[in-house]
Amino acid sequence: MAKPTVEVCLSPLLLKLTDISESIVVVIDVFRATSTMCAAIFHGVERIIPVESIAACGQYRGKGYLLAGERGGEKVEGFDLGNSPLDYLSGGNQGKTLVLTTTNGTRAIELAKGAAEVVAGAFVNLTAVSDHIKHSGRNAVLVCAGWKDKVNMEDTLLAGAIVNRLRRHYHSEGDAALGSRQLFRNYRANLNRIMRHASHFQRLRGLGINEDIDYCLTQDLAPVVPVLREGALVKG
Amino acid sequence: MAKPTVEVCLSPLLLKLTDISESIVVVIDVFRATSTMCAAIFHGVERIIPVESIAACGQYRGKGYLLAGERGGEKVEGFDLGNSPLDYLSGGNQGKTLVLTTTNGTRAIELAKGAAEVVAGAFVNLTAVSDHIKHSGRNAVLVCAGWKDKVNMEDTLLAGAIVNRLRRHYHSEGDAALGSRQLFRNYRANLNRIMRHASHFQRLRGLGINEDIDYCLTQDLAPVVPVLREGALVKG
Repeated sequence: MAKPTVEVCLSPLLLKLTDISESIVVVIDVFRATSTMCAAIFHGVERIIPVESIAACGQYRGKGYLLAGERGGEKVEGFDLGNSPLDYLSGGNQGKTLVLTTTNGTRAIELAKGAAEVVAGAFVNLTAVSDHIKHSGRNAVLVCAGWKDKVNMEDTLLAGAIVNRLRRHYHSEGDAALGSRQLFRNYRANLNRIMRHASHFQRLRGLGINEDIDYCLTQDLAPVVPVLREGALVKG
Repeated sequence: MAKPTVEVCLSPLLLKLTDISESIVVVIDVFRATSTMCAAIFHGVERIIPVESIAACGQYRGKGYLLAGERGGEKVEGFDLGNSPLDYLSGGNQGKTLVLTTTNGTRAIELAKGAAEVVAGAFVNLTAVSDHIKHSGRNAVLVCAGWKDKVNMEDTLLAGAIVNRLRRHYHSEGDAALGSRQLFRNYRANLNRIMRHASHFQRLRGLGINEDIDYCLTQDLAPVVPVLREGALVKG
């Protein structure tokens, strides 16, 4: 039997070139949406509703939801939490529904909604999400949320890491999968060697959130697979 | 004074994210459009009109133009030349205007038309095109034609090679420039080590045109810069 395929879209704009109707789509937004989703669900949050803007959180106010959002690295006034994965590590949110603002991540999730299944991928769930794909047996499409639709390094590296994990069970399809895997292999011993030159890394450094960066680049700290069901991410 | 910037678009679909109005855009289609353009102009062709399909060549028939096009690796019946750069090495086309069919390359050139200048880049003119950019002093946008808008390896590697050549004089902007440069640096000692896994390489191998591949991946065989003027590429 032919192996299933794994393909990489380095920008959400490229997702329309691929038929995803029978595939599992992994949405990747390492800094920080999908890392935060994994952290939140691993540490007790039951559901996450991704929204694109802080304004879009309005309808969820005062109804028992946890609201999470940042502007310029600071928690939005009146919100319960910021966008940092570290905000969730101490638990205490068992059974809650989180409304998480994430511009790039939410857009990528919206574009992926025609897929057979949509899950969130991050370094913090690398093994879990790779195993989840293997067990599904479906073709996989890894879509990098990027930064305003432009290619970014951290999402590319994670896509490459997943392709690398799938190499014995999956056929790597197309040169984006090849290139991202080779990049990951060349830098995996020290991701910071390339990440310190990356634009989003430098942007987050500028906000002084180095601990977030370290968390988001560490493998398997939140071994759980957030799966999209009825518009919300839940534990898969 | 701030250095000018060099940015990479790994697919023509991503070009719209960048303001190119004051920039020099380098269109890259290593297999084989831009390599063939360089070869043709270096070996005597005066002008090249890029067209997207063989059908679109119709209006140029019987008017003294050289028609070039292939289907499945074979020259189109009634055409003068194929799409291989090797067809031009023996010269004999001095002063002629070539009508060249190239699907991905032509589309990328069309999308780039709002730029301050549009030039063709390939490994065979790597030094010439890099020097041309430096002398222009303009911001540069390197657009990979790719394959049906998907990312491909050979165009990515050439973009990385140009970014690498510009490193002292230009500020590398964005992670696509960073990633393509690192890929090129990791494989430049032997491009075939990664290229043999690339999709278009395998497609061309299937057509039996290995000499084209070798030509297109060799640096500086056709040291000339095709520049777009009034819809045609001419010697810059």
